[in-house]
Amino acid sequence: MGGQEIEQLIRLLGRLPGFGPRSARRVALYLLKEPQTRLAPLAHAMERAGNAIKTCSSCGNLDTIDPCHICSDPLRDQGLICVVETVGDLWALERAGVHRGVYQVLGGTLSPLAGIGPEDLDVAPLFEKLNKGTVREIILALGATVEGATTMHWLMDQLAPYGGVTVSRVAQGVPMGGALDVLDDGTLAAALGARRPA
Amino acid sequence: MGGQEIEQLIRLLGRLPGFGPRSARRVALYLLKEPQTRLAPLAHAMERAGNAIKTCSSCGNLDTIDPCHICSDPLRDQGLICVVETVGDLWALERAGVHRGVYQVLGGTLSPLAGIGPEDLDVAPLFEKLNKGTVREIILALGATVEGATTMHWLMDQLAPYGGVTVSRVAQGVPMGGALDVLDDGTLAAALGARRPA
Repeated sequence: MGGQEIEQLIRLLGRLPGFGPRSARRVALYLLKEPQTRLAPLAHAMERAGNAIKTCSSCGNLDTIDPCHICSDPLRDQGLICVVETVGDLWALERAGVHRGVYQVLGGTLSPLAGIGPEDLDVAPLFEKLNKGTVREIILALGATVEGATTMHWLMDQLAPYGGVTVSRVAQGVPMGGALDVLDDGTLAAALGARRPA
Repeated sequence: MGGQEIEQLIRLLGRLPGFGPRSARRVALYLLKEPQTRLAPLAHAMERAGNAIKTCSSCGNLDTIDPCHICSDPLRDQGLICVVETVGDLWALERAGVHRGVYQVLGGTLSPLAGIGPEDLDVAPLFEKLNKGTVREIILALGATVEGATTMHWLMDQLAPYGGVTVSRVAQGVPMGGALDVLDDGTLAAALGARRPA
């Protein structure tokens, strides 16, 4: 299938998340069919993004400036910190436009089985801010998984000494637009357990 | 969501076949999380492939040499030409290892509605070879679509004057491993019509 340059491109594309050999070949063909207008611009955008990318030292977000656009925005509430697992979670909350504070990206979840302990989570900036006394409220927006719950309980233990700080967690329940009969038992139990007056 | 370099990368990724905004963000995050080990190698592979890519002047294949590996292979039967629509079709036949001759990639199909006429198909090298008298057999391996059939009939008209050349077309029928009850009516009709003694 062509020279080794083409084979190498297909091999690397096949490692992308959601890719298999078939989609890798499809994308490679699409790019190689128009090298000037399709392949070159994407390669350049990758290089530019790769050179520009920085991890925010204040929250762990990926951005082209450090501190990131969110941490350096004077209109964001620096006293309200939303703790998320990944940058993807942060981006999802930003797209929804539902959080007016800042973030702390943990970069993962506790997982004793996978050997991921507290030292692997990026929490130092959060506790620095807590020790400075600039934090008013912390929202734990972790995934509804075993690892997410483990991480949340560990964090709540760590946050217990900071008496003046409100700690909350995102609600669990029926997703907007979701039918009940397709939901798993855990979600149904959580939605019933957290019922409110109508 | 980060700087304009990141947004531009997500925008270009979102134009790839099979991509939407969600998968574009997912792949961008995957790449940006490890710029040195994930993003840079892929960007370099793209650049190398883009610089090396050539369209074979003999058959229309995409390769890093011209004529391509297939056309310049002395073990391939130059007198047996398989006509396909796209380079992807050629790659699929090569993966299957079922064709020992060479190819002619048309680069598309006739489509009066889309304004694609014979002048848009890459057939000149095929007729050059026919006029040189080096062609013994032509296999039409076009898609079982309206456009594929239109293109096949047009090609058969063009090939009619070359009396000494055998022209065949790939068989239509039940795909290997395919259950009959999921096939469309057209395929079932073709499979029944082309039935053979068991």
